[in-house]
Order: sequence, then structure tokens, then C-alpha cells
Amino acid sequence: MGMKTIAVLGSTGSIGRQTLGVLRADPTLGKVGVLAVRSDVKLLLEQTAEFHPAYVAVEDETAAAAVKDALPAGTKLLVGKDAASVAASLDEVDIAVNGISGFAGTEPLLKALEAGKTVALANKESIVCAHSLVEAALQKGGAIIPVDSEQSAIFQCLAGGRKNEVKRLWLTASGGPFRTFSKERLKSVTVADALKHPTWNMGAKITIDSATLFNKGLEIMEASYLFDVEGERISVLVHPESIVHSMVEFNDASTLAQLSKPDMRLAIHYALAYPERQPSAFGALNLAEVGKLTFEAPDAERFPSIPLAYAALKEGEVLPIAYNAANEAAVARFRRGEIGFYGIVSAVEYAMEHMPKGKVRSFADVLYLDREARRLAEKAMEKI
Amino acid sequence: MGMKTIAVLGSTGSIGRQTLGVLRADPTLGKVGVLAVRSDVKLLLEQTAEFHPAYVAVEDETAAAAVKDALPAGTKLLVGKDAASVAASLDEVDIAVNGISGFAGTEPLLKALEAGKTVALANKESIVCAHSLVEAALQKGGAIIPVDSEQSAIFQCLAGGRKNEVKRLWLTASGGPFRTFSKERLKSVTVADALKHPTWNMGAKITIDSATLFNKGLEIMEASYLFDVEGERISVLVHPESIVHSMVEFNDASTLAQLSKPDMRLAIHYALAYPERQPSAFGALNLAEVGKLTFEAPDAERFPSIPLAYAALKEGEVLPIAYNAANEAAVARFRRGEIGFYGIVSAVEYAMEHMPKGKVRSFADVLYLDREARRLAEKAMEKI
Repeated sequence: MGMKTIAVLGSTGSIGRQTLGVLRADPTLGKVGVLAVRSDVKLLLEQTAEFHPAYVAVEDETAAAAVKDALPAGTKLLVGKDAASVAASLDEVDIAVNGISGFAGTEPLLKALEAGKTVALANKESIVCAHSLVEAALQKGGAIIPVDSEQSAIFQCLAGGRKNEVKRLWLTASGGPFRTFSKERLKSVTVADALKHPTWNMGAKITIDSATLFNKGLEIMEASYLFDVEGERISVLVHPESIVHSMVEFNDASTLAQLSKPDMRLAIHYALAYPERQPSAFGALNLAEVGKLTFEAPDAERFPSIPLAYAALKEGEVLPIAYNAANEAAVARFRRGEIGFYGIVSAVEYAMEHMPKGKVRSFADVLYLDREARRLAEKAMEKI
Repeated sequence: MGMKTIAVLGSTGSIGRQTLGVLRADPTLGKVGVLAVRSDVKLLLEQTAEFHPAYVAVEDETAAAAVKDALPAGTKLLVGKDAASVAASLDEVDIAVNGISGFAGTEPLLKALEAGKTVALANKESIVCAHSLVEAALQKGGAIIPVDSEQSAIFQCLAGGRKNEVKRLWLTASGGPFRTFSKERLKSVTVADALKHPTWNMGAKITIDSATLFNKGLEIMEASYLFDVEGERISVLVHPESIVHSMVEFNDASTLAQLSKPDMRLAIHYALAYPERQPSAFGALNLAEVGKLTFEAPDAERFPSIPLAYAALKEGEVLPIAYNAANEAAVARFRRGEIGFYGIVSAVEYAMEHMPKGKVRSFADVLYLDREARRLAEKAMEKI
């Protein structure tokens, strides 16, 4: 296979910047064909000068206007709401890295898959909210290679057996900065506390989700949809060292685990090189230096995000959307200091309880339900 | 595939008994076609009454005479030095489980492979001593599925990548009962101390080898020959909990590990079911209950068996044979209380230093070199 052409969606975010770091360290993995951003055109221009993409995509029209004349001659500009989706679907793109944060990553995933692209997927909200549409889009010949470290681990471990031999998926969770906090103490944690992640270097939204374990809840659903394993056969294991990224237990009591240093670049590197593995210049692991790996069951009482995720997954239509949207709305308020830790939980519970019933049949349904869940969450939070 | 017919070589030993235990628990894995033993005919007759093999093979002629008239009508008797080899090569055999202890397992391995059989190999001494002959025999269409838990782990983890993507094999070692002992204290340990293995239930020879780490030395060589990875890319990691059975590090800094409870029956079960996995009724692992996995580098100064193994592997002809044979001779004396812990090391060192030089070209060479190494080891031990 020749050099792959890569579209980096969300190139100025955490995953986007780390993807470019991986490509900078190993240019043989592929060349950057597209950089897509929401509004950070200052960094976009720096990235464009370094990687010379054929296209840049900017969602925000005001920001796009500012960038128009600063682009080099060979780089075309796409602007607007669907710019990232259009850019990811261009003929010349082989792989789209979806590093867009939150629900906004959904439409680009669907459009890229409908265009038959391989998507290196870091955005979990998209598959949680639109799993049935993703499944349909995958029929067009595209593929998803997970970039989320847990899902990448499971993807790698699944090579050790056949689908019908898988007994259980074990998702590991660092437990975040509040792992050992009592329920009482959790009530008064601040956004600054939540942003101090002990092991991973990630964006703000996912770092807070890691502190509340809503991130793990989303991953339970993501794993179920990516690997077609029902919730009853997915377990969470708290593993503070973040070295074992997840595991697959087979029916013969043999478990395969994937280990590495906690460095998102390794999962990105794996996804870009797939189906091969290419040498990485960084990240070598020596367990004798690590010394100790610990594991404990998650505490569903202190972290209701976990049982709520199983409940959402069981219903599988409107509740995953409610879980995600209400959490996004609540995290925004938590970041502004307007609600506390359990305010996030209450908002999600309220939204899940009051969602309209029904089946998701179109992206319009997803958009409607997402908005409805946010409205319900806001209503719940206004009461707090 | 229909029901597999299994030859159990060394059926009254630890691996043999556990193999029959696996087949008793899950008869769909295969039917017992052959039971081969050295001399324990009492247990052989019990096993025969339960499993109705078409053949039994007894090495010891006196023991065989005692069993002759006690066999059921449908069971044929093979007798003598090559009885196990002949039995393993019978047309009706699909898989030979080689659970013979020590160097004596070598000829049955070679004969079974030459007959194109799949060998579920628990005996590591055979491949250490006759690796070039094993490689030649494998050209006849047979295959080796490792049963040694470490090699089974590596075999399973290798599914996660291609051969040229493997960077390093990590063999784990429990460290045995003397893991924390000082050199001074090791000088006075007894055979009773050595037989107290903290995690594994195994035969006496391998349990003592686990205490001296000669077992790990043999496994370094075994892994090198089984998976075609040179010694420089094989590392040992002491892991007292014996849950991670070994690991494969790929070139992209991703490591796959295989985990299970320390139960030889699981590796036997895997080998018999291969290339499928079949549900196991026992052995489910819950890491939250285990709680903690620890890792440390092995201490080459207290356990010279490790550097000696790398030296033997580097030479790769007469020294692996010397390493194994001198260790077998020394373990026999250690079991009789005639030499101490470091007496084993000295005997192996002496034999390795004084071995004739040359290449191994035939099984006669292997036999000659094995005897020569035992002679040298005895000479060294007489001096002690």
C-alpha cells in the first residue's frame, strides 16, 4: 500500500495535536491531506504551514473569514457546519482521524463511513448516540479502528480468538483523581480538582468524564456497539496505574490484556499503521520499573455513572443519547462552577427518566433527542 | 473436525494426570487413544479402565509383564524403550500430549513429528536439546502446540501481530519459594524447601527447577526455538502471583499479555482445543479479587541459571544439551540431599565449560552429548 492520506478532524484539539505529533515523529505512517477545526485558526495556520494539507475545514464562519487570505496557495478552504464531514469524505482521504470532542463528532463519522472511509475513532459520543446509523453506514465498505485506548486494547486482544469464543470484555478505568474519595467528599470537589488526572494527558471534557466515570460509562456502550457484545458481558475494573488498557476474557478462562504506557499517541499510532504495526520511537514499557499493577471493582454507589450506563445500554435507543447529552450539558455547567459532582449525576438521571420513548431511525432523530436531553438536563440543573 | 484421538505420553505423571482430568471434565475435546507410561502400571490400569485406550505403552519391561494379563480385551500393549514413540506415531493418533519428564521426552517428540502429528508439548527439555532435529521433523507436516504455560501465553499473544513486528518476548517467572532468599540463605536450602512451590502444582523435577530458575533458563531456550526469536530479544520478569503467564512486546510499544489462574489444566485445555477455544468449566479469573500483580527483574547473581541459559542459547549446539543434562543429573543428587542449591549451579557450569565442541547433526549426537554432560556433571559433583 502506498502512502496513506489522512484527514485530521479536530486537529487543534488534544487528539488532533497528538495525531500530528505521531505523524511528525513517523512521517511514513501517512501524509496529512485535511486539517479540520471548529474555530482555532491561529493553531490551524501553524499546522498548515508544517503539514501542507490539500484542504483545511473550518466550522466557524467568522474564524474562516480570518484565515482565508493567510492560507498557502496550494491549500483549499472548506467552511461551515458540514465542512469536517465534507473534508473527511473527499476522494483522496484514506483515513479520517475523528478527534472532535463530544456529540459534534457524530455527523463527520457517519459521512466518512458513508463515503467508505476508514475512521480512526477517538470520539466515543458519536457511536454511543448513533450506533444504529453507524452500523448501517458501515455497510458501505468503510471501517472503524478505535483510538480510545480501552477500545484499541480490546481490538488488539480480540485477535487471540474468534467472536463466539469471547466471554467477557474487561474495560479498565484509572478511577480518576477521585477514586478514593468518600461520597461526602465528592460533593464538594471543584473543576480544578477534576482536571488533575493522575495518569492520562487528555482534553478537558474527557478529563472531567474520567473523574466522574461518565467516560467509562460511555466506553461500556462504545465497546458494546463496536464489538457487538451485550452489556451483561462487559465489566469495568478500576486500575489506577493505567498500564493494562483493557482485556478480553475468552470462554476457556484465558484472558488477553493489552499493556503500554498511558500515552494516547500509541493508540493513534496503532490505528494509523493498522493492519500492520510500525515501530514506535517512544513509549517502551518495562514492567519491572512499574513494579505493581492493582485492580479493584468500581464502586457503583459513589459513581452512579456506571449503573446508569448499563441502564442506558439496555434500552439502547433514546437513553444512550440522553446519557451523553445530559452529561455534556452538565459538564459545561460543572466547568463553570454552577453545579457540583452529583449535580452531573442528577441531571443525567433526570434526563434519562423524562426522555420520550421510541426508536432512533435517522440522524434527525438523533439531533432531536440530543437537544431534548440537553433541555431536560438544563431543566434539572436549574432546580439545583 | 470429528473427535480428536489423543495419545497421552507420561499419563501417570503430573501433566498426564491433569490431561486426563481435562478430558474427564470435557470429553468433547477428544478421546484417549493411547496411554504411555514408564513403569507405574498400577495407575495405568486404573486410567485404562476409565478411558479405554486402544493402546497402552510401557517402557519398563518388568512392569509391562505385570500388566499384560490385566488389560481389557480391546487394549493392545506396546513395550520397551521406544513404546511411547511408536504409540505416538500410530495412524489413529491426532494429537500426542508429551508430558514425559526430562530428556526422555525427546525421542517421542521427534518420532511423533516425523509421523506428521500435532504434539501438545509440555516437555521443554526435548526442544532445548534437539531443536535442530525438531525443526527438520516439523517439515513433515506436524506441529507443536506449547503446553508450558509461558509458551502457551506467548503462542496466544503472537496472534496480535506479525512475526516481523515482534520486538521482545517477556517470560514471567514466579520466582519460586526462594525468590526473596539471600545468597547465604540459598546455600543451605533443602529439597523439602524447594518442593514448596508458592503458586503452581507440578511434578517434582520441574518444581525444583522452578526454585533454582533452571526451569526459566530452559524456557528462555524453548521460547527461542519455538518462536524463532534470538536470546537478546527474550527477557525474564519475576512475577510472584503467576497470573500473567508471559507477554509479547510488539515494535509499536504495545504489549499483549495472557492471564489466567495458575492452573496447568488451562494450558492443556487450550492446546487440545486449538485452533478453536472451547468453554472451560473451571479457572475463571477475577482481577479485582487478585487485587495486585507485581513484577521485578530477576537477580542473575543469586540465580546464575539465567545467565547460564543465555550463554548456552548463544552457542546453541552442545551447550543447551549440557545445560539440561547437567541440571537433570544435579537435581537427582539434590533430591537425594547429596548437594546443595549452588552445587546444581556448579555442576552445570563445569559441564558447560568442559563439553566437546561441535555441531549436533543427529539424534545419536544428542544422546552422546547428553551422556557426556551427565558424566561431566557427576565428575564435578564428586568433588563437592
